[in-house]
Amino acid sequence: MQKKALLRRHLRTLRVDGILITDLTNLRYLTGFTGSSGFAVITTRHALFVTDFRYQEQSGQEVRGFTIKIEHTERSREISAICRAFGIRRLGVEGHNITVEFYGRLGKQGIRIKPLPNIVQSLRIIKTPAELASIATSVRRAETAFRKLIPAIRRGTTEQKLALKFEELLKHCGCKKLPFEVIVASGPTAALPHARPTGRKLREGDLVIFDWGGECDGYFSDMTRTVLLRGKDIARQREIYDHVLEAQGRAIEKVRAGAKASDVDGAARKYIRDAGYDEYFGHGTGHGVGLAVHEKPVVSWRSREVIRENMVFTVEPGIYIPGFGGVRIEDMVVARKNGARLLTSLSRKLKIIEV
Amino acid sequence: MQKKALLRRHLRTLRVDGILITDLTNLRYLTGFTGSSGFAVITTRHALFVTDFRYQEQSGQEVRGFTIKIEHTERSREISAICRAFGIRRLGVEGHNITVEFYGRLGKQGIRIKPLPNIVQSLRIIKTPAELASIATSVRRAETAFRKLIPAIRRGTTEQKLALKFEELLKHCGCKKLPFEVIVASGPTAALPHARPTGRKLREGDLVIFDWGGECDGYFSDMTRTVLLRGKDIARQREIYDHVLEAQGRAIEKVRAGAKASDVDGAARKYIRDAGYDEYFGHGTGHGVGLAVHEKPVVSWRSREVIRENMVFTVEPGIYIPGFGGVRIEDMVVARKNGARLLTSLSRKLKIIEV
Repeated sequence: MQKKALLRRHLRTLRVDGILITDLTNLRYLTGFTGSSGFAVITTRHALFVTDFRYQEQSGQEVRGFTIKIEHTERSREISAICRAFGIRRLGVEGHNITVEFYGRLGKQGIRIKPLPNIVQSLRIIKTPAELASIATSVRRAETAFRKLIPAIRRGTTEQKLALKFEELLKHCGCKKLPFEVIVASGPTAALPHARPTGRKLREGDLVIFDWGGECDGYFSDMTRTVLLRGKDIARQREIYDHVLEAQGRAIEKVRAGAKASDVDGAARKYIRDAGYDEYFGHGTGHGVGLAVHEKPVVSWRSREVIRENMVFTVEPGIYIPGFGGVRIEDMVVARKNGARLLTSLSRKLKIIEV
Repeated sequence: MQKKALLRRHLRTLRVDGILITDLTNLRYLTGFTGSSGFAVITTRHALFVTDFRYQEQSGQEVRGFTIKIEHTERSREISAICRAFGIRRLGVEGHNITVEFYGRLGKQGIRIKPLPNIVQSLRIIKTPAELASIATSVRRAETAFRKLIPAIRRGTTEQKLALKFEELLKHCGCKKLPFEVIVASGPTAALPHARPTGRKLREGDLVIFDWGGECDGYFSDMTRTVLLRGKDIARQREIYDHVLEAQGRAIEKVRAGAKASDVDGAARKYIRDAGYDEYFGHGTGHGVGLAVHEKPVVSWRSREVIRENMVFTVEPGIYIPGFGGVRIEDMVVARKNGARLLTSLSRKLKIIEV
């Protein structure tokens, strides 16, 4: 198995005899297990997956390439016994996932432990053709649901009603779970970039942000569209929208294997700054999407990452004006040698809902 | 504010000058904040809540009793600056929540850090009247949804269809989010205690497990019912059901302030063992429910906890026979001085669906 082989390469360079995988997303990536409790230990000779009684049958159906064991005692003791059985003198653990408390418990078992960087995430960051296919389906399901939602977007309906209907449509389109609760934010509440839907009714002249994601085989998608309800004076709304759209286009243009992630962010940010809205764009331009809806790479001014081929991430600048409203446009791209390939296909032209 | 005062009492006994709260559920409990990124620092004089740009408006609406600050730099640096400003020489952190990696970053900032036990959870374990009221509503919403689902339970429908409809009903009953994906497990798949709904069609003689929860004000509920589809030979199904029901009754009888949690588990386990099904009941008898759907107390054979007044937890024994099926019955109780008060009101009599 390719993933296991890639991980094993790290054993020597990291100077550990085994790696303990506890991050459930990394665990799923490596073993196929989709449950909520388990871990794996990988050495040059062994690949062991451990879960509890509840997942005995499920792990038998899902886990490939690992020996399966059911844990019967407290986890740190279980791990200690495995270290003895496998001759592990020094065990690498996932520093981003192991808590200080659990680390202490492992230490009490007499295990020599070394915190490691998130090496499985560094494998996950480059998507395989099979993963790209799952993500593409995840995008398609999310887009189909949005198209079906559009007729329900009208004056007088509430954010909550739209969000509920949207989530139902996403499930009916085949998403087994949703990466996050759908965001529907209208008028002034659209100035909250991560607003939760409220009972506010949609009014004329409202900008309405929809931020949602789909799922396929555990792979997520993530996108945002902002629509406008026709009103008497919508010049400012249109102006903000045009700025965000232009900023997004400039960021997407920067995407290609070899580009700096901070330059992708910088292209959007510079445009918005030059347009005079600098203080109203506080978040990063994008993030990776895969088995987690927020993963590497980080696309922001702080990022030191270089874009590589087959990385998948969002490009989502926004402008949020407290008391007035907000616009965000979010698409997903896969980085290629010569540029970005868009995974999302929904029109980015401002959609004006007649009232 | 009562909760803050209770926490401050610990400052001296734990010998720290301030406590860093990073566990989002604990953060919500203390501050009211419902977003997904933030932390708080509490000293004898200060109570500071910190979040990022995205939650500026939302935190202003939600957070009470804390000064609000928006973070502008990397989190460990932000915390370091706060320690200097507040004169914190030694900072207590949540050992169950802080990762080894973040702990290392705090250390590099020159902060003296002390991992603490989960003291906020020890406050959360005893529910206030307001919390009990929210949990009661959370239970009622979940029960109303189940009652509405019952007519849809029939031969030929699939687990997935029922789960989807059930989730829609829960949302329509007022639950803003669900504590976990609804479990619908029929026939042999009901032998998987945490099965995910499949495309399997319900058949005559099937035991069908429904495990679901509701929500109100962020407080969850959690319950399970097992129904039976009429079939030619359902004697064994009935027998297993009766055993689980009796085991649950015996466990509930043990609940009162002052009892050992392990004795509650023991009452159900002993009955199931004596009935000859010992090996088919692998999980604990219950768990606390509140802002988290799995919280303290743990009600299992391993538990060392003593039940106290106004603890809320589930009582949910089960018998799972691989290849045949399973039964679980789960109710929620609040512990009183003289016994258990049931929070759930759905009948526990075996419901037989005519086919």
